[in-house]
Amino acid sequence: MEKPYAIGIDIGGTNTVFGVVDKRGHIIAQGSIKTAAHKEINEYVTNLSSALQEVIDQVGGADNIKGIGVGAPNGNFFTGCIEFAPNLPWKGLIPLAQMLSDRIKVPVSLTNDANAAAIGEMTYGAARGMKDFIVITLGTGVGSGIVVNGQLVYGHDGFAGELGHTTIRRTNGRLCGCGRKGCLETYTSATGVARTAKEFLTSRKDESILRNVNIDEITSKDVAEAAQQGDTLAKEIFEYTGQILGEAFADFVAFSSPEAIILFGGLTKAGSLIFNPVKRHMEESMLPIFRNKVKLLMSELKESDAAVLGASALGWEVKEF
Amino acid sequence: MEKPYAIGIDIGGTNTVFGVVDKRGHIIAQGSIKTAAHKEINEYVTNLSSALQEVIDQVGGADNIKGIGVGAPNGNFFTGCIEFAPNLPWKGLIPLAQMLSDRIKVPVSLTNDANAAAIGEMTYGAARGMKDFIVITLGTGVGSGIVVNGQLVYGHDGFAGELGHTTIRRTNGRLCGCGRKGCLETYTSATGVARTAKEFLTSRKDESILRNVNIDEITSKDVAEAAQQGDTLAKEIFEYTGQILGEAFADFVAFSSPEAIILFGGLTKAGSLIFNPVKRHMEESMLPIFRNKVKLLMSELKESDAAVLGASALGWEVKEF
Repeated sequence: MEKPYAIGIDIGGTNTVFGVVDKRGHIIAQGSIKTAAHKEINEYVTNLSSALQEVIDQVGGADNIKGIGVGAPNGNFFTGCIEFAPNLPWKGLIPLAQMLSDRIKVPVSLTNDANAAAIGEMTYGAARGMKDFIVITLGTGVGSGIVVNGQLVYGHDGFAGELGHTTIRRTNGRLCGCGRKGCLETYTSATGVARTAKEFLTSRKDESILRNVNIDEITSKDVAEAAQQGDTLAKEIFEYTGQILGEAFADFVAFSSPEAIILFGGLTKAGSLIFNPVKRHMEESMLPIFRNKVKLLMSELKESDAAVLGASALGWEVKEF
Repeated sequence: MEKPYAIGIDIGGTNTVFGVVDKRGHIIAQGSIKTAAHKEINEYVTNLSSALQEVIDQVGGADNIKGIGVGAPNGNFFTGCIEFAPNLPWKGLIPLAQMLSDRIKVPVSLTNDANAAAIGEMTYGAARGMKDFIVITLGTGVGSGIVVNGQLVYGHDGFAGELGHTTIRRTNGRLCGCGRKGCLETYTSATGVARTAKEFLTSRKDESILRNVNIDEITSKDVAEAAQQGDTLAKEIFEYTGQILGEAFADFVAFSSPEAIILFGGLTKAGSLIFNPVKRHMEESMLPIFRNKVKLLMSELKESDAAVLGASALGWEVKEF
């Protein structure tokens, strides 16, 4: 009999969230533990395994679980390791997939969070039925999951799809956390939007609701709220962000000619404020043969469940022991 | 019995060259006709078919031919059509694969020339055994063929891999034949190198062997010859070209994390003049996790045979009738 459930685990810097998911993308049982509270990886895996066992028991035991998918920062699909993740408590190479499958006795696959989002869109979301698409995650950073011929693009080393670190400004580019300058994510992540707000407010003199906020604490949410109230400067911040994203997307299209680019993550809450300028600049910037052919879509995965669903989608694809 | 031969056809603006190729990449019989002499497509296909029949007869007839692969500008693998190719005599949509297989009674696959080069490298050349690589063709334009998971990336519409039209200069970029500005090929094609020479010679005052050539007739070959003689300005032209290519390659790596990038086409005759600066700037520009992992290689296909071999490699993969 085909096993009816997969488990998705999303490992974030603060929390680890997991759920048992059925084939239609419904979360049947769920739980979470604190990631940051576990400075030692063995202790973390022990506590995670106990918490997982509880939800597994709720659905009739491990025999009902096809596989476990894990989305984690710097997760490498090929090795099953978390590799040198700057925002997690454990340093170096962590063979998490192996450690977890040793305890739960269910096959475990691991990838990074953006790849998990892409598989989630393909399995349950906006990319159902598509064989060629790109998911762009707009959160604290900018990540990407790329699907070509119905398969996730991992590259020869498992690290493909770092589109947040393509260089979008080659002169006077913003300094990126990666040590280079001008990376896409320095402009178009939630953090990038806040940086733009700071720049605009410092270099310009025009009035703005945003001048009521402490300039060092402005968030992309503040900018979105101001723009929704009609604030001109705030709207221009989104126009600026959307232009840079749209120009970058035109280059991504020249690479893999996807059927769709799907936006995912916190910044998409700004809705049409970000969607419209991205769409307009993407079309304007594209090579003529690609114009009016590539869909720009918002993720269809429910925000609070998306990370778990995405990871669980990987659980359906694990190879049996 | 497995059929021992495939046919490769390379359709260029001036000549159409073809050959019968065995599994080891040896050209057993070959021929050519003038492309430009045939203003009418039916007449072209008739004459091409007659010429093909001669080489087919030399190897024992069509029963010995597995398939025919065609590399043509704007060739679409999915439709088998040449679509609106600006440098060919026939306008609009030309269903060449169908027309040819109707006459020769052998399955025909068609793609663009850069994709044919990529399949050629995978089948007979520098990419044998690789599943993830990118071929960059540096000729009159800049083309690309991208392989991911062992499969050529066609995208949802057959037009993926237009890396020559990614935007490498977003301010004051050179005008491209596609109507946009700052495309990679305006800087790093053979034509782009000639444009750089013209710019450098006009804006600078230093001595150069290139000042002996009529400035409007300078070619990339002139620049390579001057650089080989130690000419400083000519060497700086290759440094400039290599920097732009290397920076672009760093972004391509962030997309698909290939095992290798393979250089192909006329400009590669400049050898280390172009190879060294590309390699240096690619490494300097890459995200740290990719450094010292991606091979930069020169094509191993013999220049004069490369186009036919590349197209023939597609012939091995045709689906039977």
